[in-house]
Amino acid sequence: MKPIKAGLLGLGTVGAGTYHVLQRNQEEIRRRAGRGIEVAMVAVRNLERAKRIVGSEVEVVADPFAVVNNPDIDIVVELIGGYDLTRELVLQAIANGKHVVTANKALLALHGNEIFEAAQAKGVMVAFEAAVAGGIPIIKALREGLSANRIESVAGIINGTTNFILSEMRDKGLDFNTVLKQAQELGYAEADPTFDIEGVDAAHKLTIMSAIAFGIPVQFGSAHIEGISQLQAVDLRYAEQLGYRIKLLGITRRTTVDGKEGIELRVHPTLVPGARLIANVEGAMNAVLVQADAVGATLYYGKGAGAEPTASAVIADLIDVTRLATADPYSRVPHLAFQPTELADVPILPMEEIRTSYYLRVTVQDQLGVMADLTRILADAGISIDAVLQKEPGEKARTDIVIITHQTREKYVNAAIAKIESLATTVGKVVRIRLESLG
Amino acid sequence: MKPIKAGLLGLGTVGAGTYHVLQRNQEEIRRRAGRGIEVAMVAVRNLERAKRIVGSEVEVVADPFAVVNNPDIDIVVELIGGYDLTRELVLQAIANGKHVVTANKALLALHGNEIFEAAQAKGVMVAFEAAVAGGIPIIKALREGLSANRIESVAGIINGTTNFILSEMRDKGLDFNTVLKQAQELGYAEADPTFDIEGVDAAHKLTIMSAIAFGIPVQFGSAHIEGISQLQAVDLRYAEQLGYRIKLLGITRRTTVDGKEGIELRVHPTLVPGARLIANVEGAMNAVLVQADAVGATLYYGKGAGAEPTASAVIADLIDVTRLATADPYSRVPHLAFQPTELADVPILPMEEIRTSYYLRVTVQDQLGVMADLTRILADAGISIDAVLQKEPGEKARTDIVIITHQTREKYVNAAIAKIESLATTVGKVVRIRLESLG
Repeated sequence: MKPIKAGLLGLGTVGAGTYHVLQRNQEEIRRRAGRGIEVAMVAVRNLERAKRIVGSEVEVVADPFAVVNNPDIDIVVELIGGYDLTRELVLQAIANGKHVVTANKALLALHGNEIFEAAQAKGVMVAFEAAVAGGIPIIKALREGLSANRIESVAGIINGTTNFILSEMRDKGLDFNTVLKQAQELGYAEADPTFDIEGVDAAHKLTIMSAIAFGIPVQFGSAHIEGISQLQAVDLRYAEQLGYRIKLLGITRRTTVDGKEGIELRVHPTLVPGARLIANVEGAMNAVLVQADAVGATLYYGKGAGAEPTASAVIADLIDVTRLATADPYSRVPHLAFQPTELADVPILPMEEIRTSYYLRVTVQDQLGVMADLTRILADAGISIDAVLQKEPGEKARTDIVIITHQTREKYVNAAIAKIESLATTVGKVVRIRLESLG
Repeated sequence: MKPIKAGLLGLGTVGAGTYHVLQRNQEEIRRRAGRGIEVAMVAVRNLERAKRIVGSEVEVVADPFAVVNNPDIDIVVELIGGYDLTRELVLQAIANGKHVVTANKALLALHGNEIFEAAQAKGVMVAFEAAVAGGIPIIKALREGLSANRIESVAGIINGTTNFILSEMRDKGLDFNTVLKQAQELGYAEADPTFDIEGVDAAHKLTIMSAIAFGIPVQFGSAHIEGISQLQAVDLRYAEQLGYRIKLLGITRRTTVDGKEGIELRVHPTLVPGARLIANVEGAMNAVLVQADAVGATLYYGKGAGAEPTASAVIADLIDVTRLATADPYSRVPHLAFQPTELADVPILPMEEIRTSYYLRVTVQDQLGVMADLTRILADAGISIDAVLQKEPGEKARTDIVIITHQTREKYVNAAIAKIESLATTVGKVVRIRLESLG
């Protein structure tokens, strides 16, 4: 059978990785797929650099539309990033009847509904395993491996940069800015790290997983997003003393509020019990924990970024598309796991309605009755306390009181925090970090 | 589209679980698969019990061949276990042009080559996600998720009973027989636990993963199998003191010995560094660690047994088969990941040729020069030492010396052990447990 012809848009880290892995493992891949996969054309800005990578056998062009419009190309592999030009390119490829493989989480989190609809109408596939958690086959697991289940929640460490920073902060007791600078020097963080450290990248990925897990459209605009740039080393230390680790988690969960179904979709620093496997995922690694009704908890761990781990997912998609291309479109795995006519209309909950537990750190003037005031405010708000850590007073007779609450609603905690901050004995703002037992 | 009709052979734990999950999640499954999956017929020994489970809408018969030969059945789901009758049933189903889903690892480890060949010839699929690691979609990950990779090794905790026993022995400092009895009372171990505790069940599963990872025929007969029944609590303790945990691992790895390619296929108790995620997989949970060239290390964790976790995998297979049934057979995912004409002829290595590290416990008469004798024997065998733990002499001036070696070949260690055991100062046998850094 003649090889499938792929056209690459972009030959940066992931593009070059994809090309190299396809070359190196071509024999292995052909033995599996039953036919070869050949990079027939590459579109890049820097033609000379690209030619050094792919040699003279692959056509290198500057215009990505030349790939998308080339009738000899079976599958377009979009590895450019960003979501304006790429949206156009992907829609054009689909209009031309080509299958698409992409690693672009931002594109799908923002324009996924439009893109999947166009693909469905045209009978082509858009595959995107590489868009979430790099080389971990989590899209496949959620969409196919767990297809018997009613999925209840997905919680993931899905941004390697922030997990690296948090691991270093904890390990070495350093503050955020110091570790960020080191991470940039080591290449674990970009020159402009905003998307990573502010949780936007994680929210893109979470949005995609949420849609697949629950059969809902992608709704990035409704995600609650908090990053790690405000985290202080002292809170990592207190968390540790209380038996927890702080991780930047993307969490999406089915829930019921006041009798109505809703879906949580949130990225924020989270305390996790230290004994959980996911709490022990260190450095730039990713892990996704899925809770589902039949199978229970399953966890998927691996490298979430990098040239070859991401290439691994891109190529797996190429092979899948090659295989399913001959199936009738109705029988293929649907883009968002559920048939497009079967997506559900369950709302994403506002953050105020979320139920979870909380870590609260209150800096107080160490006076008689301070603890009584705090606990009274919480009790009045219907918030019960799981653990308290009170430190000895330090300079200026100030001390930290750390409270771990049982589950409650975010709006009750917000109200309680406002009251605590209005106490004369409270110094500055209350630090509030959410806590998930993931049990 | 009309529902797919499945016929169940067996309605024990997994069979009943499959029926219940299909009923409970029928809406979710139909939304995903695009068509319903209906249990149309069940073959069981105890008709009355079966009727209580499936009600009056499902035909219940005593003869499993009545299901296999029923022209209305699209997919036969074999959940009987054992490998004589089931081999006949599966081959008959294939001959009748039916797809098969099975959770039967023993059947596939022993007769997989014959069964897959028959299925290939007939153009039908035999799906078996449930045969390995229960609800964890590890077959799908190895076969599809990592299809871009040259897989280097697979190491798994793939038997929940033994992992439960080892966790309890370590936690509570109890000996094997005490914990086994408790495990039997709790339902974690069978009345006849031989297949589990002697590593046979793990070897069945490992054999299947090895074939898929490396594109070789199933070769259960060549697996090296050691269970945990000889493990002593003292070795779990020493391992812990040295920073390791002891797990029953199934390990399969590509390697090169004297310039020739070979494959390791072995199940045995193994020391693993305590910091590894897989070392922290406790109780009856399963986990599989895969090392592959592009993606690096990935790990898959979840419940490896039980009614609904196994049902989760059985039903995922039913959905997959439903989907791929319309693809041309050549494009479907091959049974053993590689096209049947592309299987490799790489030999399974004899255990003597394996390279790994070792934990050696020698009980000695505490005399001057004992350590010098031991280390001299190891040095002469070309075995270098990574760590030593020497305990204070106890009763009768005996003491334990524990040695962790660097990587070496098993035959050198065997020879060294024979020499150590022939020393006048050595009491009894040397305890030898293999060690994998899994780094």
